Amino acid sequence: MLVAGATGFAGALAAHLLWRHPGFELVGLTGRSETGRRLDDLYQRYRVPLEIQPLDLDGLERIDAAIVAYPHAAAAPTVGALLERGARVVDLSADFRLADLSTYERWYGPHPRPDLLEHAVYGLTELHREPIATARIVANPGCYPTAAVLGLAPLARAGLLADVVIDAKQGLSGAGRTFDDTTHLSMAAENITPYNVAHHRHTPEIEQQLGELDPAHPELAVQFQAHLVPLDQGELASCYVTPTRPVGEEELGELYRAAYADEPFVEAVEQPPGVREVRETNFCRLFAAADAHTGKVLVFSAIDNLWKGTSSQAIQNLNVMFGLPETEGLL
Amino acid sequence: MLVAGATGFAGALAAHLLWRHPGFELVGLTGRSETGRRLDDLYQRYRVPLEIQPLDLDGLERIDAAIVAYPHAAAAPTVGALLERGARVVDLSADFRLADLSTYERWYGPHPRPDLLEHAVYGLTELHREPIATARIVANPGCYPTAAVLGLAPLARAGLLADVVIDAKQGLSGAGRTFDDTTHLSMAAENITPYNVAHHRHTPEIEQQLGELDPAHPELAVQFQAHLVPLDQGELASCYVTPTRPVGEEELGELYRAAYADEPFVEAVEQPPGVREVRETNFCRLFAAADAHTGKVLVFSAIDNLWKGTSSQAIQNLNVMFGLPETEGLL
Amino acid sequence: MLVAGATGFAGALAAHLLWRHPGFELVGLTGRSETGRRLDDLYQRYRVPLEIQPLDLDGLERIDAAIVAYPHAAAAPTVGALLERGARVVDLSADFRLADLSTYERWYGPHPRPDLLEHAVYGLTELHREPIATARIVANPGCYPTAAVLGLAPLARAGLLADVVIDAKQGLSGAGRTFDDTTHLSMAAENITPYNVAHHRHTPEIEQQLGELDPAHPELAVQFQAHLVPLDQGELASCYVTPTRPVGEEELGELYRAAYADEPFVEAVEQPPGVREVRETNFCRLFAAADAHTGKVLVFSAIDNLWKGTSSQAIQNLNVMFGLPETEGLL
Amino acid sequence: MLVAGATGFAGALAAHLLWRHPGFELVGLTGRSETGRRLDDLYQRYRVPLEIQPLDLDGLERIDAAIVAYPHAAAAPTVGALLERGARVVDLSADFRLADLSTYERWYGPHPRPDLLEHAVYGLTELHREPIATARIVANPGCYPTAAVLGLAPLARAGLLADVVIDAKQGLSGAGRTFDDTTHLSMAAENITPYNVAHHRHTPEIEQQLGELDPAHPELAVQFQAHLVPLDQGELASCYVTPTRPVGEEELGELYRAAYADEPFVEAVEQPPGVREVRETNFCRLFAAADAHTGKVLVFSAIDNLWKGTSSQAIQNLNVMFGLPETEGLL
Repeated sequence: MLVAGATGFAGALAAHLLWRHPGFELVGLTGRSETGRRLDDLYQRYRVPLEIQPLDLDGLERIDAAIVAYPHAAAAPTVGALLERGARVVDLSADFRLADLSTYERWYGPHPRPDLLEHAVYGLTELHREPIATARIVANPGCYPTAAVLGLAPLARAGLLADVVIDAKQGLSGAGRTFDDTTHLSMAAENITPYNVAHHRHTPEIEQQLGELDPAHPELAVQFQAHLVPLDQGELASCYVTPTRPVGEEELGELYRAAYADEPFVEAVEQPPGVREVRETNFCRLFAAADAHTGKVLVFSAIDNLWKGTSSQAIQNLNVMFGLPETEGLL
Repeated sequence: MLVAGATGFAGALAAHLLWRHPGFELVGLTGRSETGRRLDDLYQRYRVPLEIQPLDLDGLERIDAAIVAYPHAAAAPTVGALLERGARVVDLSADFRLADLSTYERWYGPHPRPDLLEHAVYGLTELHREPIATARIVANPGCYPTAAVLGLAPLARAGLLADVVIDAKQGLSGAGRTFDDTTHLSMAAENITPYNVAHHRHTPEIEQQLGELDPAHPELAVQFQAHLVPLDQGELASCYVTPTRPVGEEELGELYRAAYADEPFVEAVEQPPGVREVRETNFCRLFAAADAHTGKVLVFSAIDNLWKGTSSQAIQNLNVMFGLPETEGLL
Repeated sequence: MLVAGATGFAGALAAHLLWRHPGFELVGLTGRSETGRRLDDLYQRYRVPLEIQPLDLDGLERIDAAIVAYPHAAAAPTVGALLERGARVVDLSADFRLADLSTYERWYGPHPRPDLLEHAVYGLTELHREPIATARIVANPGCYPTAAVLGLAPLARAGLLADVVIDAKQGLSGAGRTFDDTTHLSMAAENITPYNVAHHRHTPEIEQQLGELDPAHPELAVQFQAHLVPLDQGELASCYVTPTRPVGEEELGELYRAAYADEPFVEAVEQPPGVREVRETNFCRLFAAADAHTGKVLVFSAIDNLWKGTSSQAIQNLNVMFGLPETEGLL
Repeated sequence: MLVAGATGFAGALAAHLLWRHPGFELVGLTGRSETGRRLDDLYQRYRVPLEIQPLDLDGLERIDAAIVAYPHAAAAPTVGALLERGARVVDLSADFRLADLSTYERWYGPHPRPDLLEHAVYGLTELHREPIATARIVANPGCYPTAAVLGLAPLARAGLLADVVIDAKQGLSGAGRTFDDTTHLSMAAENITPYNVAHHRHTPEIEQQLGELDPAHPELAVQFQAHLVPLDQGELASCYVTPTRPVGEEELGELYRAAYADEPFVEAVEQPPGVREVRETNFCRLFAAADAHTGKVLVFSAIDNLWKGTSSQAIQNLNVMFGLPETEGLL
């Protein structure tokens, strides 16, 4: 098992989770910076005593799988090269999340390896478990789509989504290991800020997934808005749905309980969730309510953006890909 | 000038602002607890060297005005008694905010002094400056209605509100000086939580104000949802509006600039505001955007919930009531 | 296994750790409040689906051991009752930490069960592993003594402590589940405060342990000072030692490496530790340095006050008491 | 009035304070980066509508005074150039703080303008008010020396300092507008870290000032240690003093009350201060206690590191330099 791009928050956590995983052996970490430095020096809280190395594809020993944690566009060529050397890949970037090439290119520019799109499966484990099991490329979802789609899937499947507003709030780890006025504690503390207003790359990803679940309404336009709030890890998606027909509390409760009764990591709870409840876990907590005053349906979905939103979901996918119990190394 | 109920966050800040105000003389602080304690001992950061006393209406020397910072239902009788002794009152509770008695009673129970409702003016200064100038009771708005109504007023006046979702985020000072699992730093830090889901007392207040501004659509049902995020002071209302007709960026920009061009405390800005920018000020910062993808209009409204959302707006109202420059003591 | 007093931060975490421990079976939780409530409702992040019950000593089924998380003076009678029913006890209170009865009574008042003192072993695992293995009562150390004594033990054993200042900083979880002006996020955030100035109950506990390690200087008077800083979990003890003779970097390095080379949970590191590095772990990280300018020795000791400082150290002790690997359930 | 170096935290706050100051006119802001940007865009919370310009010494109109907020070594030449154009300067860097050239060069390297040292006065206003009034260069103190020296001055003057340990804690604004793993909220939150262990540039500055106050013990070696704790603005210096002779509470109380009775910005208080109490003010709060157990004297000194520790003290100095009331623009 290899982690390519282990210097960022996502890659480093993936390395930490693989290192302590009983079913996988982490053999290498690569990075485009910080080479020669041990991961447990760069991230003192992750006790992984491996050095970060430049990625040497030719010198690479045979590996079964890799997690690639590169920025979009940089990821695809590396994914391709790893594939050609026989590895299966969980890619944390956006490069293989959008099935439609033109949608990808509108948001991210030219795709470096469009030929590989057909090998990719969208890695929201709960929705695509079967194809993930045999996939060569798993496109790990973005953290916002993870929370939003898990929250809205039961409504989408029931054809209930007429209009959707998603107001998402996230801690600063969502900004990644980038150093600027946004992430400095003296700017970020005691602040709440919306960002990427009316223009967020995660919108098409959410729309693609919801459209698949509700083929009768494939053209749903989702209003998605992200905010930074002053904490480290944690994400809440508050979803406001105008339903296609009136929905009551009882129907709603049954819908959510039924949808996730057998899921080890999704909990339909009886009261509004706080993100602390799922911090440093692979859990997603959902709460749905009907508002008698407006007729709208409200859904709150809480995850840890770095765990279920990114790195621990990658491990969950690897468990599925290699036939291990899905919860292995994650409880 | 008297502050009745100076032990809570709102009353204490009002006392601090009055104490340093060049145009008012703060002569007394009352409280139902902590009596005998000096305010600068209870709140070390507010340098007000006055003792908190029980409210003794009969022994009260003649005062021109008072700020009443009691819980709802407890406020109204005190407001009445002060009125009868010749004082004008800014009431921070909900008791005089709702013009319709039955709406009040649905949310708060029996009204202790419905006879006084006719003397009350809703204290969102920017909207009701004229009647405030001569009012005997000013019902200071809730912090959520302050942010939301200032944000949506230009759209309401233009008849543009067809459907409204307001997702509000607030720091822990919004919970007041209440001590429980919600406010303990060890529970509140690293957390994001929705509260009062599908049932928030501030909704009718917002609907009343927007309905007044747009008499053609008095029945608008607003979806309002509050969240706690881990900071002290600061509030952001993110508003998602389905407009009654398509609106472009240009029209929107003009609408907001025109609405607030002459307002000393409302700033229509060119980028999404963070609440840090208005912390410990009486400012409200607004940013509006049109989303071409969904056709919706987005409005972000940032205030300090304790200042413009509560106590400094009370001072702004007192300035208006007593013919002082509106910004006196607030810049 | 029973946790008596599971409603506080320490007891709840102990329950969480026991519930997921492969070698112990948690059969009951007791509390003096919140009875009938499930722990995973009171602390949503701890997934322990047991109800809190009143402590019914007579109805108690036979248990091997208990963790008692009661306040001082309330703990001792319960510890006694459990002992009499055949259970071994790890007591998180101060009741059995001080060998000298008069010292206890000076700080805490009359001791409810002085007869039991002879059965108690001080539970700083690294220092008293052998007697802990067979102890009937293990007096789990305070969090400050844990950090301080682990940090200073190598110097004490070498007879190097002439004068000691310990400046400790801790997050708000150290204040426990108490609700007041101190713990409200709006008071605690953006604050740093010393507390219990020149008068802290943990001082005699530290002096007792250091005195045992350095019998030649049993009368060392330690200057200990605690501070609250705005985080949840984490504690740093900064120790400033005037040594009995000059000590250089090299000797210091050897002293610390040798002292903890075989310890699974104490890490002598090469750079100043941050408490994030040990958050939610049973690790203690130590860094020692000689200051050429002043001749003093500086030691920094970082732990998670709720974990190694309290609840996970209780598990470590239980592992030792029941002959399990010391790290079981803790890595 | 000019602020040279207005892009950093210190310069920007100085500009904000000058802009709203009734007695000074801020005419220019310079910076080595962000030129062309308005300060109220770079720091949205500071409502200073001036553009940052490159420093053009030749084109400079005649100014009375400047605040220079450059890094050490970069500051001195600029200070010199401004002096030659007739301006008086408050320099926020370390360049003119140390009277002894060799001490400066040991810590900071070659001094660019040693010839100017004789014109510089150390700008701890409370200690050097008279020479500051006529100084051409005021060397504004570091934030740590400000808190520490104000805290220890009464003891130093009384010849009571035999041994001194200063453990200082500061928020992240103390790290300045530098962007790295230290300041990213995701690293800094939930952390406490010592830094510059056994080697801090502020030590000689503190020793110089205490030595001047106690000419009988000019060779006092101070143990100074800095820590970062997770807040924005605020600094607490906890001082542990072994006195030259026993000191009781009463003597201590009189010493501190007498020392600061007439100071507008230093408050000797009756209980341990929290930094929140002085946030965004020019106040310093001091609390001294005698520890009967150890015989030591403890002093706690709380300031806002950016205000009294840096920028508002610069304004205080300017008030003194220009014969204005010392509190002008600062209350």
